[in-house]
Amino acid sequence: MIAAADRALVDKLVLANRILYRYGVVDGFGHASVRHDSSPGHFLLARNMAPALVRRDDIVTFDLDGTALDAAGRRVYLERFIHGEIYRARPDVQAVVHSHSPNVIPFGVTGQSLQPVFHMSGFLGEGSALFEIRDVAGDTDMLVSNNQLGAALAAALGSRSLVLMRGHGSTVVGASIEQAIYRALYAEVNARLQMQAKMLGEVKYLNAQEAAKAAATNDTQVARVWELWRQEIGSIE
Amino acid sequence: MIAAADRALVDKLVLANRILYRYGVVDGFGHASVRHDSSPGHFLLARNMAPALVRRDDIVTFDLDGTALDAAGRRVYLERFIHGEIYRARPDVQAVVHSHSPNVIPFGVTGQSLQPVFHMSGFLGEGSALFEIRDVAGDTDMLVSNNQLGAALAAALGSRSLVLMRGHGSTVVGASIEQAIYRALYAEVNARLQMQAKMLGEVKYLNAQEAAKAAATNDTQVARVWELWRQEIGSIE
Amino acid sequence: MIAAADRALVDKLVLANRILYRYGVVDGFGHASVRHDSSPGHFLLARNMAPALVRRDDIVTFDLDGTALDAAGRRVYLERFIHGEIYRARPDVQAVVHSHSPNVIPFGVTGQSLQPVFHMSGFLGEGSALFEIRDVAGDTDMLVSNNQLGAALAAALGSRSLVLMRGHGSTVVGASIEQAIYRALYAEVNARLQMQAKMLGEVKYLNAQEAAKAAATNDTQVARVWELWRQEIGSIE
Amino acid sequence: MIAAADRALVDKLVLANRILYRYGVVDGFGHASVRHDSSPGHFLLARNMAPALVRRDDIVTFDLDGTALDAAGRRVYLERFIHGEIYRARPDVQAVVHSHSPNVIPFGVTGQSLQPVFHMSGFLGEGSALFEIRDVAGDTDMLVSNNQLGAALAAALGSRSLVLMRGHGSTVVGASIEQAIYRALYAEVNARLQMQAKMLGEVKYLNAQEAAKAAATNDTQVARVWELWRQEIGSIE
Repeated sequence: MIAAADRALVDKLVLANRILYRYGVVDGFGHASVRHDSSPGHFLLARNMAPALVRRDDIVTFDLDGTALDAAGRRVYLERFIHGEIYRARPDVQAVVHSHSPNVIPFGVTGQSLQPVFHMSGFLGEGSALFEIRDVAGDTDMLVSNNQLGAALAAALGSRSLVLMRGHGSTVVGASIEQAIYRALYAEVNARLQMQAKMLGEVKYLNAQEAAKAAATNDTQVARVWELWRQEIGSIE
Repeated sequence: MIAAADRALVDKLVLANRILYRYGVVDGFGHASVRHDSSPGHFLLARNMAPALVRRDDIVTFDLDGTALDAAGRRVYLERFIHGEIYRARPDVQAVVHSHSPNVIPFGVTGQSLQPVFHMSGFLGEGSALFEIRDVAGDTDMLVSNNQLGAALAAALGSRSLVLMRGHGSTVVGASIEQAIYRALYAEVNARLQMQAKMLGEVKYLNAQEAAKAAATNDTQVARVWELWRQEIGSIE
Repeated sequence: MIAAADRALVDKLVLANRILYRYGVVDGFGHASVRHDSSPGHFLLARNMAPALVRRDDIVTFDLDGTALDAAGRRVYLERFIHGEIYRARPDVQAVVHSHSPNVIPFGVTGQSLQPVFHMSGFLGEGSALFEIRDVAGDTDMLVSNNQLGAALAAALGSRSLVLMRGHGSTVVGASIEQAIYRALYAEVNARLQMQAKMLGEVKYLNAQEAAKAAATNDTQVARVWELWRQEIGSIE
Repeated sequence: MIAAADRALVDKLVLANRILYRYGVVDGFGHASVRHDSSPGHFLLARNMAPALVRRDDIVTFDLDGTALDAAGRRVYLERFIHGEIYRARPDVQAVVHSHSPNVIPFGVTGQSLQPVFHMSGFLGEGSALFEIRDVAGDTDMLVSNNQLGAALAAALGSRSLVLMRGHGSTVVGASIEQAIYRALYAEVNARLQMQAKMLGEVKYLNAQEAAKAAATNDTQVARVWELWRQEIGSIE
């Protein structure tokens, strides 16, 4: 038996679900998780439901194999393995967002890499990774629905902050819920800007040094925008 | 005389009208129907009105010829024949959505097929069908305003889930209201993604096996998003 | 002295202003007018203000020269001459909308014609007209700010339903307020669809016969969408 | 010690912050300032926070070096030097908006100039300036975070009304808060129109005379749209 997760962390995860919906990163599908604060071998994730509707009582604890400790019969997400296997492979990761963030999709299906168009997306300095599920498992339903596929996704992600999933969506990681949500939102913004810029002409992206420095500075400013998002969502009851 | 339709089914149809408006699949025009639950030779469809305003009392029962049983003098949609003839030709179809869903229109007028960009649109695995009314009836007002045109549209649809109507809009079918609404919404999303992806580069669509498997899995998840939509619409009074 | 305009007509004009704002055809600028119901040599137009804020008391009566009868010191629109000169040139026109409707602008500045992509824009069957103010008056502030420019714009419009104004916006006319508002909204929709379709491939527009027939049928359906818009705006107090 | 700023001016600055957020020019980031009404060597700017949340008490007074007079321990924006150095270099400027206004970004990263597509953006008649921070300071975090960078940005701006900042955003200036906000909003609109128009064909921009005349006329109309924005925001607490 493990200790109960910090109440404030659970609240932040609920809030994160609502923010992702409000900003169009998720619709009725997609999910966000956070690593358990006192048990790094576990993570918190909502039961199988629309992110916009998540409340505290809907948060379930999972081990890294994707087994629920306290689902109590409730359905869980088919793709919880995305989260478990990334937490296993990346000790630095504390939060994971999986979505079908719309402007990001065209990059995965054309095999193009997200690159940082502006300082807000410095976290894309290494570019996006690409996961081709067909290479790993042939013709599937496209879902990362077991540990083997989750591990393959985590391997594709490597040390990057975002992995495109061809014909499916993307997954973003962060060192905190706030950072992961920030990255998920600005990956979407960056994708739109990158598409527009490519149609206008040759794009001058941030170079590696600029991206790294911008990402470091922006990490000191995330609290500003998190406060805005928190007030916009209001009470999570 | 036929039995009254199930009250829950009528409510779902009212809800479906409101969802389609909320998500921009219909504006003041377009319509959704469902096959009568106890009389497969009849279907339910609102009277001639904007979908956003539909209430229970606005639902009328039609036979497959498009004749209203209980319109009681109220105007009916000029294009009810779309619904009747598809129900006649496709016993598997339980719900039909006709719309001018905006991102889908450019495909019909350029003769291009919708293809599944991501797993959410696995139902497009066979591609979209195309209906050219000019081939059937010469220069018309573009509306499917009689049984002959409805039958021609149903023939063009064939076994697919979506038919593009050149210079007009599209029609989507499903095995339930929920599935038809899901498909109408994600056809719109897929169309936008497909346009964007084509401008970025060569697009790798889901192949036939991937599409079929994704569609089968997604059908098990529709209840999740339907619950979101239901809560967003709230009371239909 | 002329008779007071019909109260219901004034209310419709107020409502029209609000609808145009709600649907993004106008922002803080742009204006809609209607010909006086009992004095065809006069028209009704708001005082110089944002359309979204117009109330009954803000409606002013003008003669076709653009002279206000009852402005009582209030500022009037610089471009009231658009309205007066079109009413003078086109006895069939009962309502005029001038806007900077965003998706329409790119057509005027590239000299391309709006064409009917779908049946909802059958009123574009003759294509859009183009007004190049530079040809008439050299380098100006782009505004139709006197009767001579208004008359030149009306001449450019000819018998069409819409005239593009290069580097400025567009003006749409109708046989009623409802029809003019309908056309202004669907001109905007059509423009977006036409841009998207052109990027996808060769576009098959409605031909002249299809457009004329579609326009005739749609005119019988405008009341449906007007009722929706009326309910969405609610009380105009 | 300097006199307190005019209360009405502070209120306008608060309102300006909210308007910029409502219209998507800023998100959680970006900032607007105004020159002090009785001390031209000072300016007013919010503390480090999301523009949408700014209230009267959040407004801080700075000197042109970017030193806060009354921050009282509150964090200030990293890029306050943008404002101070522009006020120093441009005595005609009374208000400055710095943002990551999305449609403007693609122009900066492709080295293309904003040009006036329509009369509403006559203030772009000289085209946009371009600031390449890499030329001034090598690889940075992209932020204008000291006086030297602020002065370089002001030099790049020159006599223009808008400067693109490659990989970052843009900065707009005005002779009043109202004019600066107007320009920030219509720069964003113009950018979208310019991108769309370029994809349609060869664009005929306003020429220099047209732009200058349009800008002069529009300045007489800003109060109209400001009144709309003021009512939309409502009470600022």
